[in-house]
Amino acid sequence: MKNETVSEETAIDLKTLLDHWQEHRRLTRRVIEAYPEDKLFTFSVGGMRPFAQLVMEMITIAQPGIYGMATGSWSVPGRPEINFMLQPPATKAELLAFWDETTDVINQLWPRISVARMRQADKAFGQFDGTITWHYFYFVDNEIHHRAQAYVYLRALGIEPPAFWDRH
Amino acid sequence: MKNETVSEETAIDLKTLLDHWQEHRRLTRRVIEAYPEDKLFTFSVGGMRPFAQLVMEMITIAQPGIYGMATGSWSVPGRPEINFMLQPPATKAELLAFWDETTDVINQLWPRISVARMRQADKAFGQFDGTITWHYFYFVDNEIHHRAQAYVYLRALGIEPPAFWDRH
Repeated sequence: MKNETVSEETAIDLKTLLDHWQEHRRLTRRVIEAYPEDKLFTFSVGGMRPFAQLVMEMITIAQPGIYGMATGSWSVPGRPEINFMLQPPATKAELLAFWDETTDVINQLWPRISVARMRQADKAFGQFDGTITWHYFYFVDNEIHHRAQAYVYLRALGIEPPAFWDRH
Repeated sequence: MKNETVSEETAIDLKTLLDHWQEHRRLTRRVIEAYPEDKLFTFSVGGMRPFAQLVMEMITIAQPGIYGMATGSWSVPGRPEINFMLQPPATKAELLAFWDETTDVINQLWPRISVARMRQADKAFGQFDGTITWHYFYFVDNEIHHRAQAYVYLRALGIEPPAFWDRH
């Protein structure tokens, strides 16, 4: 109830921030879908990581990240394997399933985050200092950043990527 | 005064949103600086636009965009040439000067934006429906998106880009 009252006066409320992230995640999912199965795991430009590895970075930030934002504990309960070292699954279908699981985890945990929490300082993943707002922006912006690299990969493969402005 | 009072209760206040944009703009400026003069205007991957043209998109969104956010008029007073059709200047120094001018325009106009304005719907550039918050995110995210493409271009040129997480 407190958040709902506050949100009436807020520049950007918590619901808008959740929507903003999930809109971007829907677009990223469509970029994964646009990939040929093999190229997702193998193709890159300039010696960079293939997109499947960039997607794993997004997932292994988002899952422990949303727990950290919501609870202050920067790990997924009972699943310590979900960390930056986790390698991609073998198939696009499995990667998409992991993506969708992450979408659900974010939606489930988000309502536990308060306006006051957004303003608190915390050490994300035990390593990075900042407010929860700063970490939130970092998670979303890092996804935009690496997804955009996949736009170049897809263009280099002769494949038209999904429209950047379409977040439905 | 009203904004200052409100910001105490807000998930993300207006000052944080300005800082967020300008932090990204500082990083983008460093990516421009990292470019060899000629490659900035000519090099790309996969048939995409060279980075100078992507930077012009950022500038010609940001300048009319901040006027629109602040005043409801989506153009730069007395400077109708600052629109999506504007071509890059001839040199990196001129492009950086245009970038810095844009930084100043954003800083000057930003204080005119209220929390209530962020929640209003408006047709950005006379074309795109959304709240001012949505437009704000679009401007910043579009910059992150196109800057990230320059990261791939730089890597393809054998140049290490500035660290994504460094926004100082």
